[in-house]
Amino acid sequence: MTKKQIAVLGAGSWGTALAMVLADNGEDVLIWGNHQAITDEINQSHKNAHYLPEIELPKSISATLSLEEAISKAEMVVIAIPTSAMRTVCKQLNETLTGEPKLLVHVSKGIEPETNLRMSEVIASEIDSAKRTGIVVLSGPSHAEEVALRHPTTLCASSKDLALAEKVQDVFINNNLRVYTNEDVVGAEIGGALKNIIALGAGISDGLGYGDNAKAALMTRGMAEITRLGVAAGSDPQTFYGLTGIGDLIVTCTSVHSRNWRAGNMLGKGKSLDEVLESMGMVVEGVRTAKAVNGWAEKLNIDMPISKAIYEVLFAGKDPGEAVDMLMGRKKKVEKEKF
Amino acid sequence: MTKKQIAVLGAGSWGTALAMVLADNGEDVLIWGNHQAITDEINQSHKNAHYLPEIELPKSISATLSLEEAISKAEMVVIAIPTSAMRTVCKQLNETLTGEPKLLVHVSKGIEPETNLRMSEVIASEIDSAKRTGIVVLSGPSHAEEVALRHPTTLCASSKDLALAEKVQDVFINNNLRVYTNEDVVGAEIGGALKNIIALGAGISDGLGYGDNAKAALMTRGMAEITRLGVAAGSDPQTFYGLTGIGDLIVTCTSVHSRNWRAGNMLGKGKSLDEVLESMGMVVEGVRTAKAVNGWAEKLNIDMPISKAIYEVLFAGKDPGEAVDMLMGRKKKVEKEKF
Repeated sequence: MTKKQIAVLGAGSWGTALAMVLADNGEDVLIWGNHQAITDEINQSHKNAHYLPEIELPKSISATLSLEEAISKAEMVVIAIPTSAMRTVCKQLNETLTGEPKLLVHVSKGIEPETNLRMSEVIASEIDSAKRTGIVVLSGPSHAEEVALRHPTTLCASSKDLALAEKVQDVFINNNLRVYTNEDVVGAEIGGALKNIIALGAGISDGLGYGDNAKAALMTRGMAEITRLGVAAGSDPQTFYGLTGIGDLIVTCTSVHSRNWRAGNMLGKGKSLDEVLESMGMVVEGVRTAKAVNGWAEKLNIDMPISKAIYEVLFAGKDPGEAVDMLMGRKKKVEKEKF
Repeated sequence: MTKKQIAVLGAGSWGTALAMVLADNGEDVLIWGNHQAITDEINQSHKNAHYLPEIELPKSISATLSLEEAISKAEMVVIAIPTSAMRTVCKQLNETLTGEPKLLVHVSKGIEPETNLRMSEVIASEIDSAKRTGIVVLSGPSHAEEVALRHPTTLCASSKDLALAEKVQDVFINNNLRVYTNEDVVGAEIGGALKNIIALGAGISDGLGYGDNAKAALMTRGMAEITRLGVAAGSDPQTFYGLTGIGDLIVTCTSVHSRNWRAGNMLGKGKSLDEVLESMGMVVEGVRTAKAVNGWAEKLNIDMPISKAIYEVLFAGKDPGEAVDMLMGRKKKVEKEKF
């Protein structure tokens, strides 16, 4: 196997963990970061203590503050940055890209609030098509910390062009990380983004003191309504029952490490959204996505009672307990839907 | 609304919790039990302390040791007994049933090992068709303790005849318990039974010290292979993504109260099956089901790598860590399947 040069944009926990996988697989990895303290620490101490405390990085991983250096020899560029920075970074990437077109892989989960665009659409709108061979989404149930510990994990590489998804599968797969392929990019991105709304709901339910029955119901019926929107947006319903859908939802809703769950938990205990966001001190992706999706669902005329109730708790002062009563008291329903 | 007389066969935690729901809804409920200490306690102290400690039962619930008395005036009979006792109790019920045919509802999850029959098939094989108007399965993500605490819970009433499922929906639905309907009995029963095998696997994974990523992968890919068998047995794939499938799987795999999870956890920590069963002192439904399903999958020529690995850990002395390595190292796969 010939070594591939791969750039990872973003020196956060997920970018760093994925760089570790690539290094373990013998690929040549260069991380692009924007904090010198972190790039220096990666290069000199083989650590990224802020994002992955107590993890020793493979010595073959290097980091740079120069985007040009990071991508100059890369065949593949892995974009691992927050969704709020996606458009800005892609503009910068487009200006920097020269020479042979590159395969772009993105691993960020969210919907752009003003446009309702998925991340691959944002990327495609900013990066000239002549500069890229394709865009592959890599997603699935994966806390970065566990991947860095080399605990068993599964992901799915999604692309309309299955051959491109297989290229990504080939560089990431190993005995700790099992990578599947899927052709449904739309479903993978919608599942990954919208699950954060349901994770807020799971936190609210736990914060209200409800049990496992309520949470499992919320997750199951939550995924049913995500599927409803996803199908209207052109995805294959089956994708939502896979790793990028229910799999990722399970990991996000059942771990106290999830930021979205923690924010919801505080809401369920009676805190206001402002208090929650202030005490978290960082972006809670599900809050942004809840706003985007509420408008999107109304526009497409899709019934999403759980997401709507969470939106109303977040932005319309609805009492969380009343929201649950309202959800439980709706008219009787047949479970199965026509897709 | 006229009061309905409903018999609940079985004075365990689930039978008692469901009797509470019916009593809350104003129905006339009589529980059939086979331990006088328990029936006396229900009648005299309005408690069932062994199965539902600290729960006060509605005073309108009575219990009897006489099957004849329990069913004599009942329009509906809810069968809430362990699957191992199903055939024996149904024989007895068949001999006792007289007069108008009754609607039978069952809430037990398992596959009969020798025959691979689902519980509704066991019931149908033992109870003369003239003595019953139909058999409805009531299933979903539901710890009995939480239903008894009136925490929000969802269930699904399944019957080929939707009107019968709606009758069951009508008597059980209230603001704490939301009941959906579904026409796919086969899927509801297979999902409910086979999820116990995956719960054993989730316990094994946790016992080995793996994380949330591994457990979410196991649950997602576990449900994919349950769906594979279910479709071969005639069910609708969509059922497995609903309350009786993934919903019930989530509740069983993520709660330390689950017997199957606890048994798996001990196996993952290196205990043998004999040691585990001895220390549990009670039937672990998933162990029985793993044996039944292994033979069934072979007979139908269905690939079920996770269930097979769990079967081998249980019955063929396979090391749990080696089983995980084997699952992670299989050949590369496309996620989507044709159903």
